[in-house]
Amino acid sequence: MNNRFAFVGGKQGLWQVTRIDNLIGTGLEMVERLDVVNGEADETEAAWILRGLTSNVRYATRVEVNALKQIQPTLNRPEALCAALIPIKKTAQWWDLSQDERREIFEETSHHTEIGMDYLPAVARKLHHCRDIGEPFDFLTWFEYAPEHTKAFEDLLDRLRVTREWDYVEREVDIRLMRLV
Amino acid sequence: MNNRFAFVGGKQGLWQVTRIDNLIGTGLEMVERLDVVNGEADETEAAWILRGLTSNVRYATRVEVNALKQIQPTLNRPEALCAALIPIKKTAQWWDLSQDERREIFEETSHHTEIGMDYLPAVARKLHHCRDIGEPFDFLTWFEYAPEHTKAFEDLLDRLRVTREWDYVEREVDIRLMRLV
Repeated sequence: MNNRFAFVGGKQGLWQVTRIDNLIGTGLEMVERLDVVNGEADETEAAWILRGLTSNVRYATRVEVNALKQIQPTLNRPEALCAALIPIKKTAQWWDLSQDERREIFEETSHHTEIGMDYLPAVARKLHHCRDIGEPFDFLTWFEYAPEHTKAFEDLLDRLRVTREWDYVEREVDIRLMRLV
Repeated sequence: MNNRFAFVGGKQGLWQVTRIDNLIGTGLEMVERLDVVNGEADETEAAWILRGLTSNVRYATRVEVNALKQIQPTLNRPEALCAALIPIKKTAQWWDLSQDERREIFEETSHHTEIGMDYLPAVARKLHHCRDIGEPFDFLTWFEYAPEHTKAFEDLLDRLRVTREWDYVEREVDIRLMRLV
């Protein structure tokens, strides 16, 4: 299993880009399509390529892991025609925090996992890490949901973006996609 | 700052390899020298190359981080003529544990940080992560100490290797080095 993924913005791929909102910091330019590649990508015609990798859980407790396993949906559900890719970079101050301080803000204060649970199984989610591999963002989170859950997905983002955790976000782009059928 | 490091086993480098003990699982072949490169390395004449990257703390609490900062020595002390590189791979079972379960084994049960503290400031230590980047090991830990602290360093390793955390180690190599002066 290759744990590396590349998100290639350009003219190719199964996903049509419907919107790019450059929310915090330097943005990404609008493109027509997004190609999701499991492995390496070096498309020379890409407008941009974001790379990340899947890893072990960094904050979740056993209780949370078990609860998530019971309810979280898989990717590629036929009805999940909508997707979002949300690249985020956190501040140096965040990364200087100790593990217990980050966990405290992430869950006990900001309820990141708990909020996400409220939108399961509607919204599927997959996290890719990229801070350690010299990428411009720290995380690339991929979401998939059916069109009728668009409002629920917006609620989820609204709730996360007002948390204390988001005080540590210094760059955020919100890329919305529709699967080409 | 480049957070990537390569440890190149072969005929070059500032460190003379005095011993390689293949403790658990597949070993590494004996070489004359070790070259420590900050960045990429692709020496075609190397017997082996181990790559890793430095990252944020994964388990340490604020109390532990502050205690470590007060007492831990820097690398490259003139008197630290001895070094060790200890590549380790942990089992799939370890990586399937949740964050709280890993922390519990790492510190509350096995006292990994607490044991390490007992040998500060004699033994300098630097951790490199490599599981997520497709390397054969999960961690490469680099240690530096003066010759008169060799016995203390052996004690440190003996104490760690009998902990419950080490039940999850499925591959371990112990490479000992002397700085060429």
